[in-house]
Amino acid sequence: MARKPLLDMEKVLAGDRVAVSRAISLVENELDGAEEFLKAMYSRTGHAYRIGITGPPGAGKSTLTNKLAQLYRKRGLAVGIIAVDPTSPFTGGALLGDRVRMSDVETDEGVFIRSMASRGSLGGLSRKAMEAADVLDASGKDIIILETVGVGQSELDIAGAADTTVVVLVPESGDSIQAMKAGLMEIADCFVLNKADRAGADQAVMSIKMILQFKMSGAWNPDVVKSIANEGKGVEELAAKIEEHRAYLEQSDELHKRRRRRMQERIQEIVAEKLHVDFWTLERKQLLATRMDALMHLDTTPYDLAYELIANFRQQ
Amino acid sequence: MARKPLLDMEKVLAGDRVAVSRAISLVENELDGAEEFLKAMYSRTGHAYRIGITGPPGAGKSTLTNKLAQLYRKRGLAVGIIAVDPTSPFTGGALLGDRVRMSDVETDEGVFIRSMASRGSLGGLSRKAMEAADVLDASGKDIIILETVGVGQSELDIAGAADTTVVVLVPESGDSIQAMKAGLMEIADCFVLNKADRAGADQAVMSIKMILQFKMSGAWNPDVVKSIANEGKGVEELAAKIEEHRAYLEQSDELHKRRRRRMQERIQEIVAEKLHVDFWTLERKQLLATRMDALMHLDTTPYDLAYELIANFRQQ
Repeated sequence: MARKPLLDMEKVLAGDRVAVSRAISLVENELDGAEEFLKAMYSRTGHAYRIGITGPPGAGKSTLTNKLAQLYRKRGLAVGIIAVDPTSPFTGGALLGDRVRMSDVETDEGVFIRSMASRGSLGGLSRKAMEAADVLDASGKDIIILETVGVGQSELDIAGAADTTVVVLVPESGDSIQAMKAGLMEIADCFVLNKADRAGADQAVMSIKMILQFKMSGAWNPDVVKSIANEGKGVEELAAKIEEHRAYLEQSDELHKRRRRRMQERIQEIVAEKLHVDFWTLERKQLLATRMDALMHLDTTPYDLAYELIANFRQQ
Repeated sequence: MARKPLLDMEKVLAGDRVAVSRAISLVENELDGAEEFLKAMYSRTGHAYRIGITGPPGAGKSTLTNKLAQLYRKRGLAVGIIAVDPTSPFTGGALLGDRVRMSDVETDEGVFIRSMASRGSLGGLSRKAMEAADVLDASGKDIIILETVGVGQSELDIAGAADTTVVVLVPESGDSIQAMKAGLMEIADCFVLNKADRAGADQAVMSIKMILQFKMSGAWNPDVVKSIANEGKGVEELAAKIEEHRAYLEQSDELHKRRRRRMQERIQEIVAEKLHVDFWTLERKQLLATRMDALMHLDTTPYDLAYELIANFRQQ
């Protein structure tokens, strides 16, 4: 784990696949030198446009991501994909990883695909996903697609931290209500109603549009694009909608504001992680263990014990 | 928000519904006096047995919770239910709240039901759910059921922090694989294959059992109970399985160990929240805002800025 990888920054910046892949591993596994590498690389980021794609399981996010990547490739753009995948606790890896899902684009040299596990990591998932996107950004990608299943808060955070966030839904009844409940509506800049050849598609579009009317943000109003991703239908329209949103963000200075806000959140996340490490020294873990008996015997309370530990931390 | 509620501890301990409901609101909304109340109440907890029920959306968790509560009521036990519900960002409340879902038990004086929102809160969801369970515990409930949708990490954490955790699945193909991916298998002490009258039920049970064989924990091996919750079928069997697991936990001292581990995690959560509040003073937020321009101009890096802020914190 602590082995220092041989990382050639120039090769990463030149987009060398092996070097980029190693750099993301460095970041994802928090190996020695990860921070130093990120610091050195940071000034080379900021070029790529980031698209978040999320939605419920089975909505066809991977297929859509795949087709969108193909479209950008045809336009001569370099594409990076980060797919955040829930991990099996048994295998320790993604069950249906990039190899299976992304076969159409995986042999294309201009597309870099990386799966990241959402479970079993030491935490900091959204920070790591952002840092992996930074690596792809610095490596010269024009477009970075962050694909996550829209079910957990950290997965939503990742998709929501993109420049344009696309929420993919399917015509199944109640789906738009489920999406609302899961907080998907909040982060969407654009909706895709995928599998639009299924029964109830028009109704679903109507229902999403009705819900959107309650939002009335004014400056940018999310729209719904219909698609049949596995036939490639609706992908052009989605790309056009993303382009439209990008133009809006750039003209309104909203892109800068959004990236600034996102970066502030990243700083807060890094601070929280660093404080955690500083706090939970072996000594303070032992102090907690010693005091746990008192707590289990109801001789103290969780809050009193937390304050006791914090006082110990602040004294040092 | 900051109005101090009139809370009569004796009434909460006596199980008075209005007092209990107010106490949970105090905790959930972090109103003035919440911590003091929890501290004062803490020594009265530890009596209730906690059951977590989780699984994918639409698996029938609420129905099963309802039927299980009815069964415990028939046995003369007092039951508390905490249902953690994703919140709509539009309404600010649970869309399909307890009133709709729990109609069979809601008029029963021996059952206390509370919905908690999983979004839009200021964070600390799992801590708050544990504290709400503490309130129900102190109020004299024998059984507390924590029902959450098994899709996000904090929702899983809540169900996984129970004494016995039940994972509800349905026969739909791939469901057990999805469950594995979502980390549900990891926290399950017992599985329910609900809607067992649907096609593919036996196959689904087989497939769960096959996956379980890989686990081979030894001391306790999770089993699968078939149910048709809306007809009340399989509920007795589930209760028996929970009882069996409880007996195992008690005999092996695993119950104490589990509760101790859970409490240690709570302490860590409280510490993290308190440190966050201590750290992000108005002054330090302003410092971050001042330094954001340098970051956006790539003149510093996220890590350097985070260290700068932490140094400022440690100096004070």
